[in-house]
Amino acid sequence: MDELFLMNNLWVMVCAVLVLLMQGGFILLEAGSTRMKNAGHIAGKTVFTIGIASLVFWAVGYGFIYGEGNLFIGLSDFFFGDFTTMFDGLAGSVDFFFQLAFAAIALTIAFGGFAERAKLSAYIVFAVLFSAFVYPIVAHWIWGDGWLAELGKQDFAGSTVVHLTGAMAALAATILLKPRLGKFNKDGSANDLAGHNQVYTALGVLILWVGWFGFNAGSTLGVEGVFFGYVALNTQLAAAAGAVAALFIAWAMLGKSDVPTMLNGALAGLVAITASCAFVAPWAAVIIGIIGGLIVFFSMKLFDKAKIDDPIFALSVHGVAGVWGTISTGFFATPQLAELNGGSAGLFYGGGFAQLGVQTLSVVACGAFAFIASYVLLLVTKAIVGGLRVSEEEEILGLDLSEHGSYGYPESMPEKHEKPGA
Amino acid sequence: MDELFLMNNLWVMVCAVLVLLMQGGFILLEAGSTRMKNAGHIAGKTVFTIGIASLVFWAVGYGFIYGEGNLFIGLSDFFFGDFTTMFDGLAGSVDFFFQLAFAAIALTIAFGGFAERAKLSAYIVFAVLFSAFVYPIVAHWIWGDGWLAELGKQDFAGSTVVHLTGAMAALAATILLKPRLGKFNKDGSANDLAGHNQVYTALGVLILWVGWFGFNAGSTLGVEGVFFGYVALNTQLAAAAGAVAALFIAWAMLGKSDVPTMLNGALAGLVAITASCAFVAPWAAVIIGIIGGLIVFFSMKLFDKAKIDDPIFALSVHGVAGVWGTISTGFFATPQLAELNGGSAGLFYGGGFAQLGVQTLSVVACGAFAFIASYVLLLVTKAIVGGLRVSEEEEILGLDLSEHGSYGYPESMPEKHEKPGA
Amino acid sequence: MDELFLMNNLWVMVCAVLVLLMQGGFILLEAGSTRMKNAGHIAGKTVFTIGIASLVFWAVGYGFIYGEGNLFIGLSDFFFGDFTTMFDGLAGSVDFFFQLAFAAIALTIAFGGFAERAKLSAYIVFAVLFSAFVYPIVAHWIWGDGWLAELGKQDFAGSTVVHLTGAMAALAATILLKPRLGKFNKDGSANDLAGHNQVYTALGVLILWVGWFGFNAGSTLGVEGVFFGYVALNTQLAAAAGAVAALFIAWAMLGKSDVPTMLNGALAGLVAITASCAFVAPWAAVIIGIIGGLIVFFSMKLFDKAKIDDPIFALSVHGVAGVWGTISTGFFATPQLAELNGGSAGLFYGGGFAQLGVQTLSVVACGAFAFIASYVLLLVTKAIVGGLRVSEEEEILGLDLSEHGSYGYPESMPEKHEKPGA
Repeated sequence: MDELFLMNNLWVMVCAVLVLLMQGGFILLEAGSTRMKNAGHIAGKTVFTIGIASLVFWAVGYGFIYGEGNLFIGLSDFFFGDFTTMFDGLAGSVDFFFQLAFAAIALTIAFGGFAERAKLSAYIVFAVLFSAFVYPIVAHWIWGDGWLAELGKQDFAGSTVVHLTGAMAALAATILLKPRLGKFNKDGSANDLAGHNQVYTALGVLILWVGWFGFNAGSTLGVEGVFFGYVALNTQLAAAAGAVAALFIAWAMLGKSDVPTMLNGALAGLVAITASCAFVAPWAAVIIGIIGGLIVFFSMKLFDKAKIDDPIFALSVHGVAGVWGTISTGFFATPQLAELNGGSAGLFYGGGFAQLGVQTLSVVACGAFAFIASYVLLLVTKAIVGGLRVSEEEEILGLDLSEHGSYGYPESMPEKHEKPGA
Repeated sequence: MDELFLMNNLWVMVCAVLVLLMQGGFILLEAGSTRMKNAGHIAGKTVFTIGIASLVFWAVGYGFIYGEGNLFIGLSDFFFGDFTTMFDGLAGSVDFFFQLAFAAIALTIAFGGFAERAKLSAYIVFAVLFSAFVYPIVAHWIWGDGWLAELGKQDFAGSTVVHLTGAMAALAATILLKPRLGKFNKDGSANDLAGHNQVYTALGVLILWVGWFGFNAGSTLGVEGVFFGYVALNTQLAAAAGAVAALFIAWAMLGKSDVPTMLNGALAGLVAITASCAFVAPWAAVIIGIIGGLIVFFSMKLFDKAKIDDPIFALSVHGVAGVWGTISTGFFATPQLAELNGGSAGLFYGGGFAQLGVQTLSVVACGAFAFIASYVLLLVTKAIVGGLRVSEEEEILGLDLSEHGSYGYPESMPEKHEKPGA
Repeated sequence: MDELFLMNNLWVMVCAVLVLLMQGGFILLEAGSTRMKNAGHIAGKTVFTIGIASLVFWAVGYGFIYGEGNLFIGLSDFFFGDFTTMFDGLAGSVDFFFQLAFAAIALTIAFGGFAERAKLSAYIVFAVLFSAFVYPIVAHWIWGDGWLAELGKQDFAGSTVVHLTGAMAALAATILLKPRLGKFNKDGSANDLAGHNQVYTALGVLILWVGWFGFNAGSTLGVEGVFFGYVALNTQLAAAAGAVAALFIAWAMLGKSDVPTMLNGALAGLVAITASCAFVAPWAAVIIGIIGGLIVFFSMKLFDKAKIDDPIFALSVHGVAGVWGTISTGFFATPQLAELNGGSAGLFYGGGFAQLGVQTLSVVACGAFAFIASYVLLLVTKAIVGGLRVSEEEEILGLDLSEHGSYGYPESMPEKHEKPGA
């Protein structure tokens, strides 16, 4: 067998494992950003939702994205098992596994909007519906033979497909679920329901950062020209710039630099460069990361002002920075790299408004579709499981007890969380 | 040098690192599944037992497995240092490192039966004995030039060699050590000595899941035909199915789905597919995973009923699911894959009872050997260190204090664990 | 493009990701080794200091190391963006990213000396200065076209360049910052300010161990001759030997084997073999690791006696073991491997004192430069930010509150750490 082909598959396989490792980062980020009484639940649910996402992707998701169909959806290759086929110049099995890992990430992002108040049954049903009917359709539009692919959309590793789609589902969920008890005061001001463990969140962000090299550099789908190295470097510079920018803006605005903002800055840099990593010069990656780190700070404040409760900052990190990242290629894409990877050069390189227009259209179309579809499917979920949210009493008690019957930290709960009647 | 050869070594090297990473998963799984007063001990001992396993494997283990010898044991290549030799079509150093990582995993599984009551000295002595005289012999039988290899045993990545062998040692240990204080009541009913941190256990399972791609897909020992991709996919589907199946069976049987069961379901799926990942179709991987997830639930209950204390569920996850996985290829192995990877097709493909018989024989023979040898060597250990178990007072105090002189969480211990006399 | 070239880049890229993963190990090691009131701060600062190290490395660090210049410093390739260039036989982007990951590790080691008392602003300013003016100069001397490279210095993966340099900066910092409150008594005896979470430290060490295969085996800069496998094996054996040696020496000297010593033994084995992994036989790797594990124990006691406060044991692990590792090749380097990798054979192979002399010179020269440069730059930092250390009140309160405005564990703080006035 051709050695270049083997090497391409080896590289993408390693990257798929790195993308799966990102789920460990999410476990830590989500558990660390929420309260002790919900920690076992929020960490544990990530494991079975990876399970659901994987099975649904196998059954129908892959087929909806890459199957033969129309500009809106693919319609073949369900219960995919013919792994001798080649896709994207890769062995079917490797391509399938890599794509599966991305689908599971989108779902995990979506569940950011569920945190600390959604029923376990709502997680299960929506995991199936989102994995079947939301993510694959957006992915088909941009990465399959969909209408945005036809228009020349640039989304190298999924700022839109994965991050924006997940974030819009999170937005629909957080609107329908309403804010957590105690998040907003009667006068409209917001309380900080501080996460219980910043070591988890910092380690979580580091693991996400590491896994992101699978996400971005793996999206080269091979080793030709060692282009993965260039992508990796842009990724590193944007993440670094995002972290540092958020550190300084928080310090300037608040007098102290809080840990969560700093960490969200790194993530925002990573999300933003996800679309553009293959299209821009390193100096532009630094600027894209800085802007990502700045807007994530203001976005977090804005959602608080708008009384939208975003416990794990999914809307700011994956949504707002995802939009910025997608649009940024319309400004910064160099002619040389646009030619290499498809699409046209950005505005700053004299590419005019063409690419910027396509990027903006895709953000609006995909964002709107992901939001509306998720909203409708959440209403379906609500009907199936009889309400999305646990009772007020259960929420106060914590979801570890209400949804799973035991605390995640049985030896460490403060008195106030003791079982009622004990 | 031949490029395919280099690529094979590169792939197996990456996989060896992933298998070593699984030890991080075990650190979290074991610490999270036990109580705070033992957490520093149980996490810390994993590090030095990797050390012992590595040195013993270098000194004698590798030679007992792969050295020239007879059907029972190998007898050359001790203190292995001739890394220019080729094994399994790989450079000696890479093959050695990959095999070493497996040996260390088997030992870590065995120590699941020691949790929360064995002396540190017992860990040290048994680590040497198990790594020298138990694991290498089973590995020689199946993966070296042993008698089960001759019979055509199918155990692609070690459901039997690693998981069942480790679990049988854990069984011998848990029987000899007797249950933890407070585990069983006088009326024979079992108490739940809940682990102290479910975020650790969830993250531990995710890290194990990630590392398992090194374990299973690395057992291809190379990149030819991109077969590692196929193996990875079966692995992913079985893990996913196991997690989801356990989620539902716990819910159906208990009214709520507890986090540990759900997590054990994913692990059971992974253990079960370890033998069969190279032999079965994706749909069969799903079924093997589902059954793994279901039996792990019932097995956990059964061991409780039988008054066998299995603190980290090693017997159910690695033992029972390991047996199921080994036997499953006797049912599901496809003719095409059996031809490619050795052995015959399974019962469901008209392969008759031949392969099923070999699989069953190997489970019985290896299981019995691992149990008896471990039992005897534990008695030897007991004689050397003067008893396997810490005193009742030390067990109540916790092994962090009794075996290491300081708490793992010095700032977080509840009052009841305070040093006596303080 | 040439397939061997692609494979070399693929391997080094994977290794760079592993080196970045080591930062996760440091997050856990540092947070676990310090107290709860500082945990969010110490974990979180790692993320933004990676950011600063990355940006500075891009701006000037890489140019100072590898640019065209003189025997003391490189002076071209700033704001590096020409990734079509080849370095070290690799694509520029991959080489750059790999080297960047090393630079960030050196900085993280340096910050070991800052723990639990330095201002956030001091971290920021010193991160810039160290990344620009300390690490790159030592790296140029040994790995660039510097004067020690000319002399034939053997430092395969950076015992001196990364570990000793980082440790000398930590020494300068810990001297200037003075010991933590409560570390030393009036009679000169030392108190154990125990770290708050040994599960973190154990997992941290395991993650560092895993990442070290990127560090050492990746320093082959390619796959030729599968030499990375040989390096990996020596690395594994030395780490194993270090862990086991430290376990026994602590037991012999203290009556009990404490968890931190055992873990530091593994790290000392890893640091020691970092210089020598490509030059010595496996049996020598075992001896180098054993000696590393022993000296780290005595070194920890010695620093306590000298009233030098080394909160995360950076001086003992990275400094003392780094020196031992660098010198060890002067004893153990085999003629065959010295020929393959540069330099001469060690004393024990009849190589005479030549190589031993070069190794010793390099330790003295690099150690002195790193110490003096760091000391001066810390004084500069002090002048810029108005003092390196937080106030006594802030130190008692904890740096989570004083530097970031919120606890890392808001739900778990013992009463004594409550906000004053609450």
